[in-house]
Amino acid sequence: MTVPTPIVDALPPMRVAERLGRLREQFDVAGIGALLVTTGANVRYLTGFSGSAGSLWVDGSRAVLLTDGRYRDQAPAQVASAGVDVEVVVTGAGQPSPLRTLSVHVAEVGLEAGSITWSEQRGLAQVLDSEAVFTEGLIEGLREVKDDGEVARIEAAAAVADAALAAVGPTIAAGAVEADVAAALDHAMRTGGAADRAFETIVAGGPNSALPHARPGPRPLAEGDLVVCDFGAVVDGYRSDMTRSRRVGGTGIGPEAEMLAAVLEAQAAGLAIVAAGVPAAEVDAACRAVLAEAGLADAFSHGTGHGVGLDIHEGPGLSSSATGSLRAGQVVTVEPGAYVAGLGGVRWEDTVLVTDDGHRPLTGSPKVL
Amino acid sequence: MTVPTPIVDALPPMRVAERLGRLREQFDVAGIGALLVTTGANVRYLTGFSGSAGSLWVDGSRAVLLTDGRYRDQAPAQVASAGVDVEVVVTGAGQPSPLRTLSVHVAEVGLEAGSITWSEQRGLAQVLDSEAVFTEGLIEGLREVKDDGEVARIEAAAAVADAALAAVGPTIAAGAVEADVAAALDHAMRTGGAADRAFETIVAGGPNSALPHARPGPRPLAEGDLVVCDFGAVVDGYRSDMTRSRRVGGTGIGPEAEMLAAVLEAQAAGLAIVAAGVPAAEVDAACRAVLAEAGLADAFSHGTGHGVGLDIHEGPGLSSSATGSLRAGQVVTVEPGAYVAGLGGVRWEDTVLVTDDGHRPLTGSPKVL
Repeated sequence: MTVPTPIVDALPPMRVAERLGRLREQFDVAGIGALLVTTGANVRYLTGFSGSAGSLWVDGSRAVLLTDGRYRDQAPAQVASAGVDVEVVVTGAGQPSPLRTLSVHVAEVGLEAGSITWSEQRGLAQVLDSEAVFTEGLIEGLREVKDDGEVARIEAAAAVADAALAAVGPTIAAGAVEADVAAALDHAMRTGGAADRAFETIVAGGPNSALPHARPGPRPLAEGDLVVCDFGAVVDGYRSDMTRSRRVGGTGIGPEAEMLAAVLEAQAAGLAIVAAGVPAAEVDAACRAVLAEAGLADAFSHGTGHGVGLDIHEGPGLSSSATGSLRAGQVVTVEPGAYVAGLGGVRWEDTVLVTDDGHRPLTGSPKVL
Repeated sequence: MTVPTPIVDALPPMRVAERLGRLREQFDVAGIGALLVTTGANVRYLTGFSGSAGSLWVDGSRAVLLTDGRYRDQAPAQVASAGVDVEVVVTGAGQPSPLRTLSVHVAEVGLEAGSITWSEQRGLAQVLDSEAVFTEGLIEGLREVKDDGEVARIEAAAAVADAALAAVGPTIAAGAVEADVAAALDHAMRTGGAADRAFETIVAGGPNSALPHARPGPRPLAEGDLVVCDFGAVVDGYRSDMTRSRRVGGTGIGPEAEMLAAVLEAQAAGLAIVAAGVPAAEVDAACRAVLAEAGLADAFSHGTGHGVGLDIHEGPGLSSSATGSLRAGQVVTVEPGAYVAGLGGVRWEDTVLVTDDGHRPLTGSPKVL
């Protein structure tokens, strides 16, 4: 067993240092003089710190990362490596929180209401010498548009997942057990250089394929089953997301073959219009129109896609209710599906970079009918 | 590749049906007429439903599980299998929430403040026709004492992890890469019948072993390194937790050997006094006394243990600040460690069942010096 030279060493750096400034530009509109960042992925985005415990105080002039003794060495090293202007303070049990002192001169401190618990919010309201202000999505909005270093990481994760499917794909045959195939994909991604799987890998065959969020189980695949494999890898914190579908024993003819083709055509229709400036809802509508034509309108029971980055699901959403337009630098999935009880399911998904005049695919496994 | 007959089929059932009644007994003291359960593990505990999206309304007479279309079949099947008196309501986007109707006759509805976000709490306050009441730990308290079916699941998970270490242990040698060993343990647990790893597996060698929460990396193990392996499996939602430490190439003599022995002695001292009625803090103190004797008081930088069940960390905590006493049926870890920069780290951890007159170990891998 060998792990390749860490993939991340060969990747271009991310522009972490400029992110704090872009966050501060939003303070006035949000009605805050400071933000307490408690969402792990947001702390990482702003500082480079990847530990499991840390919160980041950001006011107009200072940024202070509060963490515990476990990260005494790691936190300053990662902050320095990211080149950001962030002080690190190691807090300990029984010590007074530095937050009271930090908040003395700030009237309104934003909290991240989408991830902080009600209990934590109550506790912080006691600690802060300021009004706690409800905020949502300030940093998540910034994270939607990726820089080149981020795109390179998602692309590297996608390449690891592609290689895993190339290795494991031939085992997806009659008699193979869903849970085994999923474990093999995960293992191939780990030994192929991924830090981890991007989410719980889905391998769903036969009746399970008709469930968009099936968990792999003990059922062996049978000849003629539709099989949906939805998985991704993590490289340096960034995730990829891809789904490939097939029919065990060959596509053949009949309703399974028609569904495989119809959903692939729907995905192609969606991908064809992805470009900066295009309303996200139009991509969803393009996929949906093809499936309606094929009589599968009701079988497509979820949205068409989502942003991917430090989180597997982030902005923008690509659904019928989406209100915004795509922007260059966003990384999104396009993943129409069709699920029919008694027949099975199909989903085709790629992760793509939105560009000014179209898109660039980051996932690359063949889509074979 | 084959997955064994699902382990869970051979396990005794859990007594799920009685749990709602035990929850309702707490309503008066909590000052609520109903509780909206939004923590996934708590929903599963009360209903048997294991899907990723679901909340449970519990009032004095009704229990209603709200989930979405993905779980239209799974939710009623799991609720029926658990034998609980729970109605399932499938909600859809754009439909009015059933919560307003449910809450019409209840003046005070508890929310789970330890997991619900501030944003969700605000949204629910709009939906509920009642006062939203801050509650914490109502169900987590019930979950601390396990029934026989729960213990059997944790024990089955522990057995899978034991088998994984037996298979992978011989590869833990000079030149082996931390990340590879971790991936191999995870793969062995998955192919051995686990639904998943219980948490991100730790394999930490040499300098990394001195970090209690190291992540496995690309470093190859070297002769003489201390190595800490901390991992567990999931069976039917229940987790195990175990840590084994060793020295690459053999324990030998010197400070590494002394640390391996001292921490093992500390663990034995802690385990020796585990029994119903013993203050949890005394178990911590027993471990700490042995390490102080060995000059390692400052090197033991975390608490001695925690409960294990549907979550990898749950009550009770076994630390110097713990206030309660152990109860029969609790499943806890005893895991003293010592971490010395420049030398490395050691941790010995077992998951054990607290009994009236002592404990029964659930993890069983040999502890070899």
